[in-house]
Amino acid sequence: MFSRRIADIQPPPRCAPFPAFNKMFNGCPLRDSPSFSELMTETALYLIPCTLGDTAPELVLPAANRDIILSLRHFIVEDVRSARRFLKAVDRGIDIDTLTFCDMGKHADRSQFASYLEPLRRNEAVGVISEAGCPAVADPGADIVAIAHREGMRVVPLVGPSSILLAVMASGFSGQSFAFHGYLPIEPAARQRRLRQLETRSREERQTQLFIETPYRNRKLFDDLLRACSPRTRLCVAAGLTTEREWVRSMSLGEWRKCGLPELSRVPAIFAIYAA
Amino acid sequence: MFSRRIADIQPPPRCAPFPAFNKMFNGCPLRDSPSFSELMTETALYLIPCTLGDTAPELVLPAANRDIILSLRHFIVEDVRSARRFLKAVDRGIDIDTLTFCDMGKHADRSQFASYLEPLRRNEAVGVISEAGCPAVADPGADIVAIAHREGMRVVPLVGPSSILLAVMASGFSGQSFAFHGYLPIEPAARQRRLRQLETRSREERQTQLFIETPYRNRKLFDDLLRACSPRTRLCVAAGLTTEREWVRSMSLGEWRKCGLPELSRVPAIFAIYAA
Repeated sequence: MFSRRIADIQPPPRCAPFPAFNKMFNGCPLRDSPSFSELMTETALYLIPCTLGDTAPELVLPAANRDIILSLRHFIVEDVRSARRFLKAVDRGIDIDTLTFCDMGKHADRSQFASYLEPLRRNEAVGVISEAGCPAVADPGADIVAIAHREGMRVVPLVGPSSILLAVMASGFSGQSFAFHGYLPIEPAARQRRLRQLETRSREERQTQLFIETPYRNRKLFDDLLRACSPRTRLCVAAGLTTEREWVRSMSLGEWRKCGLPELSRVPAIFAIYAA
Repeated sequence: MFSRRIADIQPPPRCAPFPAFNKMFNGCPLRDSPSFSELMTETALYLIPCTLGDTAPELVLPAANRDIILSLRHFIVEDVRSARRFLKAVDRGIDIDTLTFCDMGKHADRSQFASYLEPLRRNEAVGVISEAGCPAVADPGADIVAIAHREGMRVVPLVGPSSILLAVMASGFSGQSFAFHGYLPIEPAARQRRLRQLETRSREERQTQLFIETPYRNRKLFDDLLRACSPRTRLCVAAGLTTEREWVRSMSLGEWRKCGLPELSRVPAIFAIYAA
């Protein structure tokens, strides 16, 4: 058993409930590995995307996610209020008071994170929900997932909206190679240096470069892009993805300079650049 | 009108059907921009994810995608047969013979791509479908999207499964910064050099590095990873995502060496590394 192997280098494994899943990691070929039905009877840590903004869940989430969500009793969440609101949107009839919520938000005590997986150790599934979009992608969740892997637990990511991925699709830039960098430095000189670095990397590696900013600074980031990068470098702005305010536009910085940026100070946006 | 502005530097614009969408790009603030209902009456180029493998569409696609798909008459597809199969899976009753399909696969004549958007120019929506997952992400589609942007057409990416994004979520590695590199070089020395480069970049930039391989070479890539990278570097293998064969496992290369890789020669897999 894999779970015994890693005992050499890890604290005593507590992953007893995952025998079928862990059977695969014994060097055995897949023909000896567990069947789907065997696997499915095992619990998992489910990574549950939620909506971006007030969009109705059925517009952006597969129907199957709802069934999984309604089967869960334990959630690890970035923000309890927004998670409750999301669960209510998924099913008005959900009995929130029977559910447990553990906080993984920025003020949470990270030393408690391992204890959040206690239900899994007794074979009860757990869901992870961040404030918007996919947990562990530009949002908390990765620490929880890492602990689950360390204990040999099964991790199942569900399909849902990711503004990053949607922006890559809709940019018209390379989707064969792309990098997401999160937030750029705020200090103007450092930010412009970073933008020039990303432009150079895009040119040299033919790689689409994506980044974000808090909405009230979107205009500032746009201005810095016009200052720092070549007018021939292409910029895609993907705003309010999956919401009523969605629009996506790709053009050269020279064209952006002429056309201007629509008001974006309250709209979440993703920026992508591609330098030819 | 934006469409008139770019006339200075582009061939004569043919984006007459998009007045509300283009109204935003006139430097006007969003309060003057078109309402949702105005925008929604305008056509768009829809980027339509399909399933990864034989999974039922309702497991991985929002119900809303089906309504959009059934409203379309024109499709630009990587492979006509697989696109028809996907459309039949979405709705058995679909009348395939009333639909038009344009080929954007690797043997297609790229000089024809601009003509594929002809329906949009007369205000009829068009859908883009690749062989698996999200169009324009590790799959064709970006060229078509780029043409649409050049003509000021509205581009709408729909939500669906992306093995890359699901792998980031499920890896337990950083989702604050990650890069997807597509296929690595095949030649052994060049491949190992590339793997060491990615390991260094991951360490220096705290960036998750993702790449893929054709399934029959998965074992070879795994062996190259063991050879090229530090045993402390973490590797996530995400196999058969969203299918019955799905499993995701993250551990150090030292642990992977002990446990071995399950048989993967016919299972699509994503590899991610993270070096501490």
